[in-house]
Amino acid sequence: MPERRNKGGRRRRPDRGERSNGVARPRLPELTNPFAPVEILGEEALERIEDTAFRMLEEGGLEVRSARARQIYADNGAKVDDESQMVWLGRDIVREFVGKAPSRFKMHARVSDRDITVGGANIAFAPVGGPPNVSSLDRRRQSGDFATLCDLIRVVHGLGVTHVSGGGLVAPIDLAVDTRHLDVSMAHITLSDQAWFASGIGRTRILDALDMVALARGCDRDQLLCEPSLYTVINVNSPRRVDEDLLDGLMAMAENGQPNVVTPFTLAGAMSPVTIAGSLAQQTGEALGVIALTQMIRPGCPVVFGGFTSNVDMKSGAPAFGTPEYVKATLAGGQIARRFALPYRSSSVNASNAVDAQAVYETGMALWAAVMSHSNMVMHSVGWLEGGLTASFEKMVVDAEMLRSWFETLQPLEVNGQELALDAILKVPPGGHFFGEDHTLERYETAFQDPVLSDWRNFETWEEDGSRTATERANGVWKQLLADYERPPIDPAIESELNALMARRKSEIERTGL
Amino acid sequence: MPERRNKGGRRRRPDRGERSNGVARPRLPELTNPFAPVEILGEEALERIEDTAFRMLEEGGLEVRSARARQIYADNGAKVDDESQMVWLGRDIVREFVGKAPSRFKMHARVSDRDITVGGANIAFAPVGGPPNVSSLDRRRQSGDFATLCDLIRVVHGLGVTHVSGGGLVAPIDLAVDTRHLDVSMAHITLSDQAWFASGIGRTRILDALDMVALARGCDRDQLLCEPSLYTVINVNSPRRVDEDLLDGLMAMAENGQPNVVTPFTLAGAMSPVTIAGSLAQQTGEALGVIALTQMIRPGCPVVFGGFTSNVDMKSGAPAFGTPEYVKATLAGGQIARRFALPYRSSSVNASNAVDAQAVYETGMALWAAVMSHSNMVMHSVGWLEGGLTASFEKMVVDAEMLRSWFETLQPLEVNGQELALDAILKVPPGGHFFGEDHTLERYETAFQDPVLSDWRNFETWEEDGSRTATERANGVWKQLLADYERPPIDPAIESELNALMARRKSEIERTGL
Repeated sequence: MPERRNKGGRRRRPDRGERSNGVARPRLPELTNPFAPVEILGEEALERIEDTAFRMLEEGGLEVRSARARQIYADNGAKVDDESQMVWLGRDIVREFVGKAPSRFKMHARVSDRDITVGGANIAFAPVGGPPNVSSLDRRRQSGDFATLCDLIRVVHGLGVTHVSGGGLVAPIDLAVDTRHLDVSMAHITLSDQAWFASGIGRTRILDALDMVALARGCDRDQLLCEPSLYTVINVNSPRRVDEDLLDGLMAMAENGQPNVVTPFTLAGAMSPVTIAGSLAQQTGEALGVIALTQMIRPGCPVVFGGFTSNVDMKSGAPAFGTPEYVKATLAGGQIARRFALPYRSSSVNASNAVDAQAVYETGMALWAAVMSHSNMVMHSVGWLEGGLTASFEKMVVDAEMLRSWFETLQPLEVNGQELALDAILKVPPGGHFFGEDHTLERYETAFQDPVLSDWRNFETWEEDGSRTATERANGVWKQLLADYERPPIDPAIESELNALMARRKSEIERTGL
Repeated sequence: MPERRNKGGRRRRPDRGERSNGVARPRLPELTNPFAPVEILGEEALERIEDTAFRMLEEGGLEVRSARARQIYADNGAKVDDESQMVWLGRDIVREFVGKAPSRFKMHARVSDRDITVGGANIAFAPVGGPPNVSSLDRRRQSGDFATLCDLIRVVHGLGVTHVSGGGLVAPIDLAVDTRHLDVSMAHITLSDQAWFASGIGRTRILDALDMVALARGCDRDQLLCEPSLYTVINVNSPRRVDEDLLDGLMAMAENGQPNVVTPFTLAGAMSPVTIAGSLAQQTGEALGVIALTQMIRPGCPVVFGGFTSNVDMKSGAPAFGTPEYVKATLAGGQIARRFALPYRSSSVNASNAVDAQAVYETGMALWAAVMSHSNMVMHSVGWLEGGLTASFEKMVVDAEMLRSWFETLQPLEVNGQELALDAILKVPPGGHFFGEDHTLERYETAFQDPVLSDWRNFETWEEDGSRTATERANGVWKQLLADYERPPIDPAIESELNALMARRKSEIERTGL
């Protein structure tokens, strides 16, 4: 352990207690992956998957449960049958329209220094979305409510590891179904300062969210058209079905120049073939078929190729995540997205029922695949538990530690004269140590990542302090973050306008249902 | 969930209980990494590290605490000073001798179908080595003894995920220090059937181990000369010191054509510079300097470039593992080893005090770096806990699950007509499912990895069954493996000779101390 010194303006090392009590860390800036992506498929395999995907669209078609969407497909050369709601797309049409989508785009937050670029080698982490339940060590799994959703947003903000503020971190079932999207939008806008995900179910909800985003950013819908500021995820109801509410949301997003993250729900063995190759072919066809629609609506509007292929447990039918099959599908999905020059989305997910070793090894496998497949958006990367049925407070803290570790791993390894330290190496005698060297003392405070959760004290000290596992320690971390939470600044006039807009829309919806 | 069917010779799916109770899985065969290695350093950075390493050997030198080893260095052109015990090596000498080492070699087990190739894109997993303590959920951390060491070897054998049977999985402190190497060798030979690690401390121990290996394989020392059959790890006592006992072991191994795994103990900030670049330079210099010695002794004898660079916790001085710094050093170490056409060794390690989320996320990061750096030997990959101070029974089971997941991830992703499943995709209607399809039923039993430890049942079922975490379930797995353990067959005549050899050597050592 280096001795304390304080000469020549050198900083003293912080007090031990001071450091170990602090759970705040700098928020992660934009992240670029310096490594080449891991490639699992050769050219011939990619061609076969692509050909199968195109044949699926040509011979099998998609069931498009929106007359308006079918009309758009028909107007752009697809074969359409309104009775069966089927749409058949030739590969030339798919190629033509998918080719209009941008390979990267900028996402605008309400605070411009939280803007990010989606595409290329950039990676954005997003928190868990969609679970009906929430859990912590203090209260066992229960249904979500709005107060808990707000706490989850606060903890995510405090953890500072995400680039996007998520969508429904848990479903607020205590709020009215028809208007809860307004409360959720308001929570994301005021409790965080990043771009966020709106629920893509229905046109009205998207338009409401867009009005609120425009107000929060102090701009109008025209400016939003060329400045993407809101995401939504559009799941294909695999196999080969796209539901009307989602199509309505997707069309509203595309018309307004906002990015849809088009993600087929291809769980191998259930909603897609039991083989990963077959599931990838289906995922590719479904994603490209729907992505083409966005470009028919507004050529050049941002869109993301979403991969979610995993396998189900063939014993129970339950989805599995972070499995070898998941990893392979994620790596291959990245290659396919790059083949079509589209930004790629995957996830950091697991199927464990507790924040235990299983939760972490499954998440860890999913996460390395997400990062090394060059995923541009890694969804569910903070707080996902139990196959997505539960948002876990402790899992959020564990995930944040894992994301910070990856973030630091992706920073450049400096190899210059000072870093190479030849003088220090020559100065320390054989069998000596480097603790007291100037080269060490000048750098040791910032040389290594300072973890929030990891406990590196020796066994005896750790045992005397209660033998707490990482999950038990995580419980203290999120509570501290919640206690320390400070709402990011927002112009009071804008907040007041947002409240007025929300009140007006609630009243309209209650009155007219629209 | 697929319904049971049994027609046309199709296998029925196994009974649920039958599968979930079974903890046995096929032993992993040899493993080759199909992915390109992840490269973190460019050519210029590699050149700088190499140059710094060479300057360290030229200007700083190594302290070589064996007169015989120094004489060998001197005879081969190095500058030697016997008073200070220092050896200075020019880069031309290092290049010349390191260049004689093979880039790959075959390791012979006593059962030939457990032979493996070390080098190229091959990966061998080895269990934890060296801890003084052992722990399980049943009995808290305590010192090791021989009975427990044997149980650890049995569990590793039962898990079936390693390619090497390890060295001291725990120190058997109940046995006499001077003769325990004989008991440990006997345990590895009879309780397992793989090649294994002998303690490299001292010439006598290595020669005893070699005699036992030769007997076990039914060959003589001459045959061993061209058939590597025993490993040892030689740690450089960083910085720049090589101890006499280890040099004696190393020389005995090299003379007999057996592989030394030369591993500097470069913990950045303590035994090497606080920067990863500096630690890599020192690691490279120390490893190459000692590897050169092996080739001066016996040109072409197998040797492995070992990387163990990590950082210490600058708050406590304790080593940290699986950190971002560890990952970077592991990836870079692989590039450096390949630069010198040497097989590479790294580790799957963590610094947690419990088999918890921290243990797994640190191990997970170390493991992906080990695999994706193209490590040929991944040491400590089963059972390592607490920075290597403890062998954990439950961690063994968790690690085995992680290794099986990696193994499966590294198997080829088949993309042929049958796997692409176009017929099944076209047959299942939009919104339908694939559970009942022939394509599914023909494959579902073997389509996906069948985990030992992961529990994918729904929350309610899991809760009714006791809400057991993965670590708690692991406790049942290793006990089952121990109960089911069957000693691999060995010729009784050979075993009898081994026992006689051991008895004779014990008597000699007790009488003469040699």
